[in-house]
Amino acid sequence: MRHTISVLVENHPGVLARIAGLFSGRGFNIDSLSVGETEDPTVSRMTVVVNGDDFVVEQIGKQLNKLIDVIKVVDLTQEEHVERELVLIKVGADGTTRSEIMQIADIFRANIVDVGAKSLVIEATGTDDKIAALTDLLRRFGIKEIVRTGRIALGRAQKQQK
Amino acid sequence: MRHTISVLVENHPGVLARIAGLFSGRGFNIDSLSVGETEDPTVSRMTVVVNGDDFVVEQIGKQLNKLIDVIKVVDLTQEEHVERELVLIKVGADGTTRSEIMQIADIFRANIVDVGAKSLVIEATGTDDKIAALTDLLRRFGIKEIVRTGRIALGRAQKQQK
Repeated sequence: MRHTISVLVENHPGVLARIAGLFSGRGFNIDSLSVGETEDPTVSRMTVVVNGDDFVVEQIGKQLNKLIDVIKVVDLTQEEHVERELVLIKVGADGTTRSEIMQIADIFRANIVDVGAKSLVIEATGTDDKIAALTDLLRRFGIKEIVRTGRIALGRAQKQQK
Repeated sequence: MRHTISVLVENHPGVLARIAGLFSGRGFNIDSLSVGETEDPTVSRMTVVVNGDDFVVEQIGKQLNKLIDVIKVVDLTQEEHVERELVLIKVGADGTTRSEIMQIADIFRANIVDVGAKSLVIEATGTDDKIAALTDLLRRFGIKEIVRTGRIALGRAQKQQK
């Protein structure tokens, strides 16, 4: 099962390496990982997506909690949450195909963030499914480069999770 | 100087830990890091933002290139590029403040992705500056949680970088 784990950590050098090591030491491949700043500059929030057995993921959660720089671990898979990912796609586009690509972007509420003579850069956010559907549609124009942030997630607004 | 480094890697367990270790071994703190899938399921793209001396970052680039699972390293700081980040913000909101928050979200082209009785979840994309400006404006309503993907970047469309 795919797990989305949110980890609050102290923003120290080496924390990321230790946490990544903890997953790989168990043979887990991380599907996606994002680390960014929070409101508190001394604290970062890491969102890790891994495929694995519920029991083993729980064990990893416990081990994470033991690390000195880890403040809090939440397996969001267990609760209602909002998930999003950002993708930038550079797609081939010339005078004859540009308007069709812009139409597709529009339908997906994606934005054109850069235009060149032979390509466009599209920015889109959404769930895995939405991003997969968009890239499928763009494939025939020639995808030159793609970069994804990996998933981030928050517990739903209904829950007053702190 | 802040460097945005894009690294294409083989999607194997342990790659992330090795790369993160390479940075922390030099005492570099990673400001943000994102790893996501690419068009090729065996390949991931990592975007790392670090603050550091140009010379030392160049050395790290060389060391990254020596790792067996690293396919390509590009320091995007050296060339024109498009940068974006995604943020989810859970902000306090009730009947009296909701419409004002929605107005702010609208100005920033941000989307409301979840609504509860006492809070909203806002999704926004942009550069560091834009996200900082939005969070500054939302602060007085009470920011309950914030999660950021870390920056991703692509060379501009004008350049036919592969």
